[in-house]
Amino acid sequence: MEFKEQLKKYQQMINNELEKYTRKEQVPEKTLNESMQYSLMAGGKRLRPILVVATYQIFKQDIENCMPYAIALEMIHNFSLIHDDLPGIDNDDFRHGKPTNHKQFNEATAILAGDGLLNNAYIVISEDIQKQAKKIEKAEETKKQEYIEELSRKVKVFNEFTKAVDRMIAGEYVDTEYEGKQIAEEYLEYMHKNKTGALLKLSVRMGAILANCTKSELEKLSIYAEKIGLAFQIKDDILSEEGDEKILGKPVGNDKELKKCTYVSKYGLDEAKQILEKITKEAIENLEEYGEKAEFLRQLALYIKNRNK
Amino acid sequence: MEFKEQLKKYQQMINNELEKYTRKEQVPEKTLNESMQYSLMAGGKRLRPILVVATYQIFKQDIENCMPYAIALEMIHNFSLIHDDLPGIDNDDFRHGKPTNHKQFNEATAILAGDGLLNNAYIVISEDIQKQAKKIEKAEETKKQEYIEELSRKVKVFNEFTKAVDRMIAGEYVDTEYEGKQIAEEYLEYMHKNKTGALLKLSVRMGAILANCTKSELEKLSIYAEKIGLAFQIKDDILSEEGDEKILGKPVGNDKELKKCTYVSKYGLDEAKQILEKITKEAIENLEEYGEKAEFLRQLALYIKNRNK
Repeated sequence: MEFKEQLKKYQQMINNELEKYTRKEQVPEKTLNESMQYSLMAGGKRLRPILVVATYQIFKQDIENCMPYAIALEMIHNFSLIHDDLPGIDNDDFRHGKPTNHKQFNEATAILAGDGLLNNAYIVISEDIQKQAKKIEKAEETKKQEYIEELSRKVKVFNEFTKAVDRMIAGEYVDTEYEGKQIAEEYLEYMHKNKTGALLKLSVRMGAILANCTKSELEKLSIYAEKIGLAFQIKDDILSEEGDEKILGKPVGNDKELKKCTYVSKYGLDEAKQILEKITKEAIENLEEYGEKAEFLRQLALYIKNRNK
Repeated sequence: MEFKEQLKKYQQMINNELEKYTRKEQVPEKTLNESMQYSLMAGGKRLRPILVVATYQIFKQDIENCMPYAIALEMIHNFSLIHDDLPGIDNDDFRHGKPTNHKQFNEATAILAGDGLLNNAYIVISEDIQKQAKKIEKAEETKKQEYIEELSRKVKVFNEFTKAVDRMIAGEYVDTEYEGKQIAEEYLEYMHKNKTGALLKLSVRMGAILANCTKSELEKLSIYAEKIGLAFQIKDDILSEEGDEKILGKPVGNDKELKKCTYVSKYGLDEAKQILEKITKEAIENLEEYGEKAEFLRQLALYIKNRNK
C-alpha cells in the first residue's frame, strides 16, 4: 500500500475509534461534552495514535490491544492544544482552520474541556486495566501467568504515560516563561524535548512495550522516536516562519513578532533545514533491522520532514 | 482522643505526606513546581484525604496502603481550586486568606499548575499500581492470589477515581453555565452532587474498598458520604452568605451579587439550615454498626455542619 493511502486508512481508523467515545446524552453539561468533541474531531493529523498502532504492528497485528492507549494519547494531545490556545497562554484564535475552543465556546468552557479531556484519557486507560485485572481473576491456572505479564506491561505503559504528560506540561511552561526572552541553547532543547518530544516518544514506546518487544528493540525505537520528535518541532518552527497560511490554517510569522524561541530564531532558516535533514536520516537508521515491517514508520519520518502543514 | 486533636493529627500527617512529593530540583520549570506547591500547601482542611484514611481505619490500620490515593485526591482537589479561581471562571483573588495561584504567579502558570496537579494525581496512583504489579511478579505461589486481589481493588479504585473527577468537572461546568440564571431545583442538586459530592463520596469509597469491606458496608458508607457531601455544600452556601470574612479568608455575600445558584438563594437561609441538620443526622445513622470505630467519622459530620470556615 502507498504511504499516503496507509496514512489515510490509519487516520480513518483513529477517527472511528474516537467517535465511539462521543457522549450524546441530554445532560446538563451537554455543551461541555460538545466542546471536547469539537476539539477532538477538529481534524488533527492523528500522528501520535498512529505512531502507537504502527509501532505495535511491527510486532503484532491484534491492534485492539493498543487502541485504548492510542486514543488516550490523542485526548491528551487535544487537551494540551485547547489550554495552549487560551488567552492566558498563547491567545490563538484559529487551529486547524477553525476557531479555537474558547473562541467557539467561551473561556470557562475551554478550560474545563481541556481538564475533561486530560482526565478522560485516564478513564480510558483505567477501563482497559480494569478489564485486564478481571481477566486474571477469571482465568484458568494455565493462562494466569500470561495475563499477569500482559497486565504488567499495561501498568508500565500507564506509568510512562503519566510521566510523559508531566514532561509535556513542563515543556509548555518553559515555552511560556521564555517567550520574548533570549533563550539559551540548552533551554531550547529542553523545551522541545519535553513539550513535543515526550508524547511522541511515548507513542512509539507504548506501541513497542504493549507488543512485548525486547529491551534492545525498545531502546532503538526510542531513539527513532526522539529523532522524529525533534524533527517534528524543527519542521513546525520552519512552517511557522515560511509556511502557507491557507494550508496551515493559522497565521504565519507570529513567532518572530512574539520573540518566540524557535529553531529558526536560534539557528536561522538554512541551518534549521540542514539539522532537519540530518536528524531524519538518523531516525530512519534505527529501523534497519525490521525491513519491510517498518516501512510505514520510515515513510512517516520523511512525511514529518516534508509536510506542508 | 478528642475529635479536634485527632483532626489536627490527621491534617499534620497528610501535610507531611504531601511534603514528600515536593520537587525542589533546579529545573527550567522550577517556578511551575513552586506554584503547584504553593496551592497544595496553602492550608486547606484536608477533608478528602482524611476521609480516605479515617474510613480505611474502621477496618484496618496499615494506612500506608491507602495513603497514595488520599494524596492523589488532595492533588485533584487543589487542581480544581486553581482552575475555578481563574479569571475565565470565578475570577477570585483570594483563597485561604492568600492570593490565588494566578494572582501570586500569573494566569499561564496557574492554568499549567492546575493541569500539572491533575496529572500528578495519576502519577501517584500509577506508581502504587506498578509497585503492586511488581509484587505479584515476584510473589511465591501461596501469596500470589492475595496480591492479585489487592491489585484488583486498587485498579477498581483507580477507575472510580477517574469517573469522580469527570463528575467534578461536569459539576463545575454546570455551576459556570448557570451563573446568573434562575436554576431549576433538579439542576442545583445535580450540580452539587457532581461538583462537591463526587469527590467526597469517592474519598469514603476509596478507603472502604482498599480496606476490603463487604458490599453492604460499602453501600452504607456511600450513603454516609453522599449525605455529608450535600451537607458540606449547604454549609458552604450558608457561610458564603453569613460567614466571617476574616475567618473564611475570602469575601462574603458575593454569591448574591453574582446571582449564583446556591441552597441559600433557592431555599432561604432558615430552611437551608434545617435541611443541613436533617441531612447530618441521616449521615450519622449509617455509621451505627461500627460503634466506637466510626466515632471520628461521626464527629466529622458534626464538624462539617458546625464549622465557621
